[in-house]
Amino acid sequence: MREVTRPRVKDLKQRIDAAMGRERADLLLRGGRIVDVFSGSLRKADVAISHDRIVGFGDYTAEREIDVSGHIVAPGFMDGHLHIESSMVTPAQYARAAVPHGTTALVIDPHEIANVMGPKGIYWMIRCASKNPLHVFVMVPSCVPATSMETSGGSVSGSDLEALMREPWALGIGEMMNFPGVIAGKAQVLKKLTVSYGKRIDGHAPGVSGRNLYAYIAAGIASDHECTTLEEAQEKLANGMFIMIREGSSAKNLADLAPLVTPENSRRLMLVSDDRHPYDLVRQGHMDSILRNAVQHGVDPITAVRMVTLNTAEYFGLKDMGGIAPGYRADLVVLKDLKDFRVEWVFHGGKGIVARGVVQESAFQTKSPPLARSFHVPRVQARDLRFPALSERARIIEFVPGQIVTQGLVESIPVVNGLAMPDLDRDILKIVVVERHHGSGRIGKGFIRGFGLKEGAIGSSVAHDCHNIIVVGTNEADMASAVNEIARMGGGLVAVSYGRIRSSLPLPLAGLLSDRPVEEVEAKLNALQLEARQMGSSLESPFMALSFMALPVIPKLKITDKGIVDVDAFQIVDLFV
Amino acid sequence: MREVTRPRVKDLKQRIDAAMGRERADLLLRGGRIVDVFSGSLRKADVAISHDRIVGFGDYTAEREIDVSGHIVAPGFMDGHLHIESSMVTPAQYARAAVPHGTTALVIDPHEIANVMGPKGIYWMIRCASKNPLHVFVMVPSCVPATSMETSGGSVSGSDLEALMREPWALGIGEMMNFPGVIAGKAQVLKKLTVSYGKRIDGHAPGVSGRNLYAYIAAGIASDHECTTLEEAQEKLANGMFIMIREGSSAKNLADLAPLVTPENSRRLMLVSDDRHPYDLVRQGHMDSILRNAVQHGVDPITAVRMVTLNTAEYFGLKDMGGIAPGYRADLVVLKDLKDFRVEWVFHGGKGIVARGVVQESAFQTKSPPLARSFHVPRVQARDLRFPALSERARIIEFVPGQIVTQGLVESIPVVNGLAMPDLDRDILKIVVVERHHGSGRIGKGFIRGFGLKEGAIGSSVAHDCHNIIVVGTNEADMASAVNEIARMGGGLVAVSYGRIRSSLPLPLAGLLSDRPVEEVEAKLNALQLEARQMGSSLESPFMALSFMALPVIPKLKITDKGIVDVDAFQIVDLFV
Repeated sequence: MREVTRPRVKDLKQRIDAAMGRERADLLLRGGRIVDVFSGSLRKADVAISHDRIVGFGDYTAEREIDVSGHIVAPGFMDGHLHIESSMVTPAQYARAAVPHGTTALVIDPHEIANVMGPKGIYWMIRCASKNPLHVFVMVPSCVPATSMETSGGSVSGSDLEALMREPWALGIGEMMNFPGVIAGKAQVLKKLTVSYGKRIDGHAPGVSGRNLYAYIAAGIASDHECTTLEEAQEKLANGMFIMIREGSSAKNLADLAPLVTPENSRRLMLVSDDRHPYDLVRQGHMDSILRNAVQHGVDPITAVRMVTLNTAEYFGLKDMGGIAPGYRADLVVLKDLKDFRVEWVFHGGKGIVARGVVQESAFQTKSPPLARSFHVPRVQARDLRFPALSERARIIEFVPGQIVTQGLVESIPVVNGLAMPDLDRDILKIVVVERHHGSGRIGKGFIRGFGLKEGAIGSSVAHDCHNIIVVGTNEADMASAVNEIARMGGGLVAVSYGRIRSSLPLPLAGLLSDRPVEEVEAKLNALQLEARQMGSSLESPFMALSFMALPVIPKLKITDKGIVDVDAFQIVDLFV
Repeated sequence: MREVTRPRVKDLKQRIDAAMGRERADLLLRGGRIVDVFSGSLRKADVAISHDRIVGFGDYTAEREIDVSGHIVAPGFMDGHLHIESSMVTPAQYARAAVPHGTTALVIDPHEIANVMGPKGIYWMIRCASKNPLHVFVMVPSCVPATSMETSGGSVSGSDLEALMREPWALGIGEMMNFPGVIAGKAQVLKKLTVSYGKRIDGHAPGVSGRNLYAYIAAGIASDHECTTLEEAQEKLANGMFIMIREGSSAKNLADLAPLVTPENSRRLMLVSDDRHPYDLVRQGHMDSILRNAVQHGVDPITAVRMVTLNTAEYFGLKDMGGIAPGYRADLVVLKDLKDFRVEWVFHGGKGIVARGVVQESAFQTKSPPLARSFHVPRVQARDLRFPALSERARIIEFVPGQIVTQGLVESIPVVNGLAMPDLDRDILKIVVVERHHGSGRIGKGFIRGFGLKEGAIGSSVAHDCHNIIVVGTNEADMASAVNEIARMGGGLVAVSYGRIRSSLPLPLAGLLSDRPVEEVEAKLNALQLEARQMGSSLESPFMALSFMALPVIPKLKITDKGIVDVDAFQIVDLFV
């Protein structure tokens, strides 16, 4: 972790002495070509490093030399916007997974854990990242909780935000998702924007255009990572926004936005991941894979590198990062080329973390600091999930494959002994959200179509935004088992049928994260998905689909612990009509 | 003057309401094309302004419309590095002179007045600028006084620097001229660099290259405005420095550095004036003339505009300046074209200062705030300037036309009655520096060749860096008159012959500045120069030449109140050898 403090005279003097050759350098990277992100070019140069800094170029005497002939030396990659929680691993495990792919700095928005634990969760993320060879900066979540239509475990109040913004690792205010509130000029929303202390305010304004966009930007919001079309990105750019081109696991915008990039405007552009699911992190990598994609989509390679180094550093005001120059942090990545971006060496503050593709495992401190248990939920019985049919017609959430937007239907449902029942033939399953933060015993109940299960139930404690327990199933007994097993694990994902736990992934940290390596998480998630498919689900990623069914800010019909939400009307509605 | 404070909710709301059209805009600039510095292009757009901010584009209802059809609307020009004192006028008069040329922000290094009055002089500059339609930011002078070989009136200590750096108008530490001190790793020099609080540190490193440059940059110094060759600029740029291409009255680097500018690197480049003599300010203009020159030298016009707007704002971290976007300050200039850069309208925070080329005089508050008298010097007699010839051979300063570097000669001098005399036939004149800050009566005495005076004396209180009284002359009586007249005026320039004040320019503010309009200052300076030429001087600008003869940090032989300085040896030396 980076500490932003006043430099010490002795450190400056030491750097100067090393630059002058009066003191032997620690390391010399010899024979490579460096990406000069300042001039926008490549040049041959040996790089001298002393302590954690680059000190000069050329023929220095050093304690140690590494021959990087035939390779490219680039500044370490920075991801300017991501939610680590999407990867279901701790920041420490994320470091272990991403650093070998050349990532040396993250700017995270810990929105998910904040919804579970408030500021405590944010501080824990930082503590967990510390002692790992990766800079983790925070954009303080601005909208926690997002609505009052579900029950969160934590919140970030105005005064919390203000206190957090004073931390040296806080680079600004996280994505202001409440763009309707900003555009409407709501005082309680705008008040949050006044505590930026000159730091950045990230935006989130999908499809916002024209006067709405002007109003949003006039509030001081400086970036957007939600552009999906070239025209949208061009408009936002021309109105002063920095554009974060997102190539995440869920949303991929690079193909559409690559034509945006020109030599004249690229300074205002970044590449970011936003989210990275375990599978992609394990199989594809991190910023290296985004760079590879960018170049495949026609972005000039040096420009692409600038979009994950200098541009990101400049946007966030990180004056000694993102470039290869004297006094800059020696966060460097050595690449085979600027096409495949295969990472051969990674240096964090001059310390070798990866050498010839081999990871220095001892550089990572993957043990998590302690985190309070976040589950407070009474044991659930099958009967708790049964409910009377107040009419024969009910609102049904319709899952739309590949989208987080749902449709809302009204259909007849089977009634047995006065109780509302699922209808497997018509793929109408039961879905429940069990409040799990405060032990209230509150359960939202409803129906959903599109998951396709023919037996059992699947459940998760990853349920945006408040991460209550969400379960979809064919019968109440298995659903209750799923709820109870998730609570027992202190969070996680589970597949249950005929009373048996078929597969599970414990996420004991805030119900969101595993402290196991991402490879293990990915394997378990994969196993879970296989089970779900064997139980009849036709979905590629049924657990990810499930995680968005409780998100009451995305249309159209959703479910929370408080009941069925008509998102367009922005209110709780009756299940039966 | 700009106040950097936490934004108020009501201001954000007001901007949002205006952007949405819920509140009528104050002003609409209709029909022009705007310079989109973000995308690097031109586009047709009507600009809506509310209070001091841009709020949107397009067909807004406004209190007032201005038809700017056929014109270009650009962000107001910013000069990222200059010394107002070079113009011999107050910041208020500078505003009056420069704003009509499209300048809306200055980043000044008040190094000269600080040498006379210390921090008080810096605060006075800010007070004097306030209430004028021009943002004046300060880079706090880092080297006051520069040496102990002359006597200054004020100093900026480490703790002064630290206090000044906390001011909202302080954007960083001014040009670190003591590059030998930095490179040597001197603790008292480095200590100053540690109080930057994350703000910028400007550099000044003429010709510094290779390891010396690495050491200098490793200390955290971020810019340089002293590049004179393409190679020098390329090296500094590639090592992470922002390059301020200087096109001043004294030093003109644009012709040499214009080829540096490419679409890939221009983000790290700025255009600055450094100094602007009254003549140039009156006859050529300010940033408009530098833009004109840049384009004539082949720089792309939009790139050139970015180099005095967005690039400057980004470098200094001024997040709401330097571009035309919602929420940005409505500091705008309307130009006839991007070739001549003729300024037709200027807006400061939405307020019209120039309209169709006509200046709104009432917008300027040119009356200066009070400033303590800075002259404490006893009356001088001719006999005080006579001195015995300790030998027949003396060191002679040789002025080199067009340069501030001098040569040092040793020549025989006439001796009459044991006194050392000037020799007009050989153009050997007397030169004296009279300490004027502390009433010490200390006078440095010597000889100079190259001024060519055949009668009388000329004198000035503008004498870098400490601004004691400097006089060159053919006889002691006129020299004494010159000293006394300068002291009587409380500072200024004077030409004296045969006991008569032939011409003078009072500079009663710190002995450096006039509170009169620059046109009047320029006329008086012109008259003085004519007189000096009539008195025999062959120099184009004898007073400017004079102002550098006491500067003991520029080789080779100089004179201060403490005596003759051998700059290479960095010590006071005997006049006679």
